[in-house]
Amino acid sequence: MTVTHRTQSTRRPARPATGRAAAVDGRRVANEQAHDESSRRQRPDGAWRDGDPVGRRRFATIGDVELERGGVVPDVRLAYETWGRLNEAKDNVILVEHALTGDSHVVGEAGDGHASPGWWNSLVGSGGTVDPDEWFVIAANVLGGCQGSTGPSSTAPDGKAWGSRFPYVTVRDQVAAERALLDQLGIRRIAAVVGGSMGGMRAIEWAVTHPADVDRCIVLASTAYATADQIAWCQPQLLAIRNDPDFAGGDYYAGERRPDAGLGLARRIAHITYRTETELDERFGRQAQLGEDPLRAGDRGRFAVESYLDHHAGKLARRFDANSYVVLTEAMNSHDVGRDRGGVAAALARVEADCTIVSVDTDRLYPPRLSDDLHAALPRSRREHITSAFGHDGFLIEEDQVGRIVREALERGPRDHA
Amino acid sequence: MTVTHRTQSTRRPARPATGRAAAVDGRRVANEQAHDESSRRQRPDGAWRDGDPVGRRRFATIGDVELERGGVVPDVRLAYETWGRLNEAKDNVILVEHALTGDSHVVGEAGDGHASPGWWNSLVGSGGTVDPDEWFVIAANVLGGCQGSTGPSSTAPDGKAWGSRFPYVTVRDQVAAERALLDQLGIRRIAAVVGGSMGGMRAIEWAVTHPADVDRCIVLASTAYATADQIAWCQPQLLAIRNDPDFAGGDYYAGERRPDAGLGLARRIAHITYRTETELDERFGRQAQLGEDPLRAGDRGRFAVESYLDHHAGKLARRFDANSYVVLTEAMNSHDVGRDRGGVAAALARVEADCTIVSVDTDRLYPPRLSDDLHAALPRSRREHITSAFGHDGFLIEEDQVGRIVREALERGPRDHA
Repeated sequence: MTVTHRTQSTRRPARPATGRAAAVDGRRVANEQAHDESSRRQRPDGAWRDGDPVGRRRFATIGDVELERGGVVPDVRLAYETWGRLNEAKDNVILVEHALTGDSHVVGEAGDGHASPGWWNSLVGSGGTVDPDEWFVIAANVLGGCQGSTGPSSTAPDGKAWGSRFPYVTVRDQVAAERALLDQLGIRRIAAVVGGSMGGMRAIEWAVTHPADVDRCIVLASTAYATADQIAWCQPQLLAIRNDPDFAGGDYYAGERRPDAGLGLARRIAHITYRTETELDERFGRQAQLGEDPLRAGDRGRFAVESYLDHHAGKLARRFDANSYVVLTEAMNSHDVGRDRGGVAAALARVEADCTIVSVDTDRLYPPRLSDDLHAALPRSRREHITSAFGHDGFLIEEDQVGRIVREALERGPRDHA
Repeated sequence: MTVTHRTQSTRRPARPATGRAAAVDGRRVANEQAHDESSRRQRPDGAWRDGDPVGRRRFATIGDVELERGGVVPDVRLAYETWGRLNEAKDNVILVEHALTGDSHVVGEAGDGHASPGWWNSLVGSGGTVDPDEWFVIAANVLGGCQGSTGPSSTAPDGKAWGSRFPYVTVRDQVAAERALLDQLGIRRIAAVVGGSMGGMRAIEWAVTHPADVDRCIVLASTAYATADQIAWCQPQLLAIRNDPDFAGGDYYAGERRPDAGLGLARRIAHITYRTETELDERFGRQAQLGEDPLRAGDRGRFAVESYLDHHAGKLARRFDANSYVVLTEAMNSHDVGRDRGGVAAALARVEADCTIVSVDTDRLYPPRLSDDLHAALPRSRREHITSAFGHDGFLIEEDQVGRIVREALERGPRDHA
């Protein structure tokens, strides 16, 4: 099987593929046509829905996914995007794993069904980190997500949205869905899996679960297991959403209201953990938002940093679904490569991939010590450091440093699996 | 004027004074009698109310407090506690400033109107940090608080609770109320003012506002101004309370329900910032709460760290008032010794006190750099460091280190003000 795709000779993001249907391994992989934008304005959340413009998305129906913790998600669909061309040996695949609120749109512009521009726009392009003439890049929206893959905002077999009935999924379930997607595309081996934060959890889980299939594993600002501190930070976020009366226990899709307040509150908490105290203080200090006076009660105005958090809260609510936020947050909390494998060290000892473990020096959510531990337990690992004023978000912001690290990792020969 | 008080010869907390009325400077300072405990069970929040057992509290009515940002709080009452005896020269006063959810009960047991034991029980006692035969220690519940001083849960002149009508108060207003209290007690000079976190804000504000009245100023885990990061952390806390439907815009006292969910959410966020990621991870790791299974959806169980946060949320809701939490949080956000004084450096240059500026090495909410800045700008300052695994809460937990620092500061002669 060959997936053809238009490639770019400049660093500009690749343009979306034009809509066409393709049969891959006998299953349906289709781009659907864009349709009237107006229907999107009444939808009750920020999820992508059938009928919305597909943009660069392709879709693969991978069948039922049996879940690690019991139950099954029937008839799972994954939305994915690709860049470059799969070579005949099928050994040039780079799997890119998105973080909590990311999606398959790694590279590209906003619009046409994509609420945001690519979250790693410098990754692909002949002047970018990865040359699309050499590599075949693939990124799928995660199982449980809300940008085209099956998740709580999707339609369940009974014709209604999953909502509160969507089952508990783990990072391993998400990797299992991706394994099925690649199988369907005729891909066995991965030349490199790369991801940051929640994406780094899937990356390392890939290397542990499928040691013989992963040549290189690049983990940015992540961890071998969710720590108590990370779980602690998630708790008020989960509660904020669940306590929002408009959440309606997770079954808000049929109603008029959506839990933007709770989702926005969760995002504010998370966003602060993604940055650093010095960056916020240098950028905003004690400045009042223009024209507002924060030093009074009642209808008080805001500090500039409050307006900034309001902005990020509102922005996420327009492009994300609260149920997906809950499902994916709980999946992150589940993350522990050592579960049922004799512990973290034993699990990591199984990894055959050439690993690159990268932390951001100022990361207060995934502190460098977690990368140190990961690196120390891996049989074949290189430890890299990103210097950034921005904290955890440095893995997204410091594209030059990340680009260098990824290029160098790709230049190193994969381990000889013979 | 002499305030007599029973003192202790052991390190055990001083016992509450027995209820009696005393006239001080012609104004009423009274202990009220304990009464039937049963009425407390129906009250709509965790505030102390007239009719509740007074415990060690005394009360001073200090008249109207004109507010920095406009308006007035009429007929303000402050609840306070004292230990030791005011000497004839009235130069042995140590003013202790409590933090956000603290109160006047610095030393003592729980019960009899005090929901918690003293928050700094090792401070007073002949074997403790401060010898009550030598010093006269005084601590007042802050203006806007909920443990006996005038705050939003108090009765306004119209006979109803202040609720949403309670005005915006700043740290300077809180210091002004304390200045009036000390005036009423016949006290002009303070041998030492000491406080941590929000209490440190009042301590340094005292030294800036009343330079000639403060001999020593000990600031623990605090700052000259609330930073953007601190304001950012407060924002989801304030929103969590305000978004709680049971908050009812702040006017929930007459109703059946109280905004425990919102207050608890705020407390969870705050509590995480008070600790460190390594302490939480070493203490709880990925352990499930006993008998619960966190790795499933719906009625899922909790991780141990989630149960821990639930515990702290519930505990605060039983002893604190959500409106006070909002008012005091906004007062903290107001904190900036440099406002209308030509900036922070100019304000701190006015300080005449011998200052001791103390940080906790692992504090992620009031990082040591803020103490460095404070120290550098003060004319006469000593920089001290607390080593702790616990982060910001180290200023409360590391009593031995804090005790040594306070003792040494008291042993140094105050500046000659002649």
